[in-house]
Amino acid sequence: MKDKLLYEGKAKQVFTVADNSNLLVLSYKNDATAFNGEKKAEFQGKGRYNNLISAKVFEYLHQQGINSHFKEALNETEQLVEKTTIIPLEVVIRNVAAGSIVRRTGIEEKTIFDPPLVELFYKKDELGDPLINDDHALLLTDATETDLTKIKKMALQVNEQLQAFFKEINLQLVDFKLEFGRNASGEIVLSDEVSPDTCRLWDIATGEKMDKDVFREDLGDLVTVYDHILSRLEAKQ
Amino acid sequence: MKDKLLYEGKAKQVFTVADNSNLLVLSYKNDATAFNGEKKAEFQGKGRYNNLISAKVFEYLHQQGINSHFKEALNETEQLVEKTTIIPLEVVIRNVAAGSIVRRTGIEEKTIFDPPLVELFYKKDELGDPLINDDHALLLTDATETDLTKIKKMALQVNEQLQAFFKEINLQLVDFKLEFGRNASGEIVLSDEVSPDTCRLWDIATGEKMDKDVFREDLGDLVTVYDHILSRLEAKQ
Ligand SMILES: Nc1ncnc2c1ncn2[C@@H]1O[C@H](COP(=O)(O)OP(=O)(O)O)[C@@H](O)[C@H]1O
Ligand SMILES: Nc1ncnc2c1ncn2[C@@H]1O[C@H](COP(=O)(O)OP(=O)(O)O)[C@@H](O)[C@H]1O
Ligand SMILES: [Mg+2]
Ligand SMILES: [Mg+2]
Repeated sequence: MKDKLLYEGKAKQVFTVADNSNLLVLSYKNDATAFNGEKKAEFQGKGRYNNLISAKVFEYLHQQGINSHFKEALNETEQLVEKTTIIPLEVVIRNVAAGSIVRRTGIEEKTIFDPPLVELFYKKDELGDPLINDDHALLLTDATETDLTKIKKMALQVNEQLQAFFKEINLQLVDFKLEFGRNASGEIVLSDEVSPDTCRLWDIATGEKMDKDVFREDLGDLVTVYDHILSRLEAKQ
Repeated sequence: MKDKLLYEGKAKQVFTVADNSNLLVLSYKNDATAFNGEKKAEFQGKGRYNNLISAKVFEYLHQQGINSHFKEALNETEQLVEKTTIIPLEVVIRNVAAGSIVRRTGIEEKTIFDPPLVELFYKKDELGDPLINDDHALLLTDATETDLTKIKKMALQVNEQLQAFFKEINLQLVDFKLEFGRNASGEIVLSDEVSPDTCRLWDIATGEKMDKDVFREDLGDLVTVYDHILSRLEAKQ
């Protein structure tokens, strides 16, 4: 099914699919990167966890009526998705203050955002994915004002759904990053991944960090933590 | 008239006024700072130029119906203003790409912004005045959504007026920074200064930089440049 390597990113390889130019295979790698690629490591099994967790998230979001690129998990590390033209924005939703927003704005860590805070970052590795405002987004991407409104609305809907999803496995959804793309019909759909690499998840009982911050802050064994998340998700069904 | 030193900033001293707690005296200093205070120097006469130029700008804006804190120039280096509670936002309007936006977003220098680009920065020296979006501004200041709309609208009106004002003396208004505050009646008025320290001004005939970039980029003698601007303004009347 997998045909040619189209693109290799920091977390995934992207392959074309033989005989169907509207589909892609995303192959999750074991690499972990942080601080804009400055910190790097490889963790045996990480790709498998992110693939399986992201697949479960997208299946759930599909059931909740969120349009996404996701088709199906193909195997332990790969999933089939609709090919989209990614809009180069990282759409971040924050329910609780943590990470960069604390450093950037001085807002106290653990401040609750109600309504959730929406941030746009320009997806551009060379520039370190800078924070931008809506006017910048209109200049830097082909998104229109209507598209931005739609993207933010979808991101907030995903937030509602994911808060419930993770709460069921005793995790607080602190913040997360989404990417959106246009499919062959020109429709904007949720793309990329939703995994402990792209979410901040705190154990509701213990407050422990159960996401990529374990790697960023050297808090323990990343793979063990990701394994806990997958086990909890499997146990809930 | 000047009573007590209330605050000393990077460019001005702020004094209370005896017997009128609704007024302040702004005393322009000779200091120049750039790159968030990293580069510093003193230029004999700079305070005088900024005071006199800023006074002319505010007089013109007043004639054009823009509400501001400005009352009158008191002498060569000081002006009388209405006391306001400054909203800690630096409102930047860009007509042409230059400076930080080029570094931050990769937008090519000299790109024309039509409509002009509006940016908000959080005025907080310790944080390096970071770029923020509207949602951040609502969290970090007491400005409401209505206030932000009003502030941006006023800033764009100021831009229209200032483009014409500077064009008359053969200068292109590339970008500039404004601050707004609330006066005793709770009204939002343009505050702080508008000077070659806070604007990018390019000579229309030669393209030469005639603003603080001369200091930032070591392009020549700052005071000579500021003197040219004041002379052109005086000649036009
Ligand atoms: N449905 C899709 N169609 C096309 N590209 C996609 C899709 N989903 C994700 N991508 C892109 O796949 C690339 C690889 O992912 P990743 O390794 O996370 O890359 P990066 O290092 O750029 O974040 C990214 O550029 C991402 O935007
Ligand atoms: N009308 C006003 N009422 C009160 N404060 C003002 C007014 N206009 C300007 N200011 C404030 O005066 C201070 C001194 O100016 P400046 O030296 O430029 O300071 P800074 O280094 O903080 O930019 C600034 O904090 C500015 O916001
Ligand atoms: Mg990625
Ligand atoms: Mg200032």
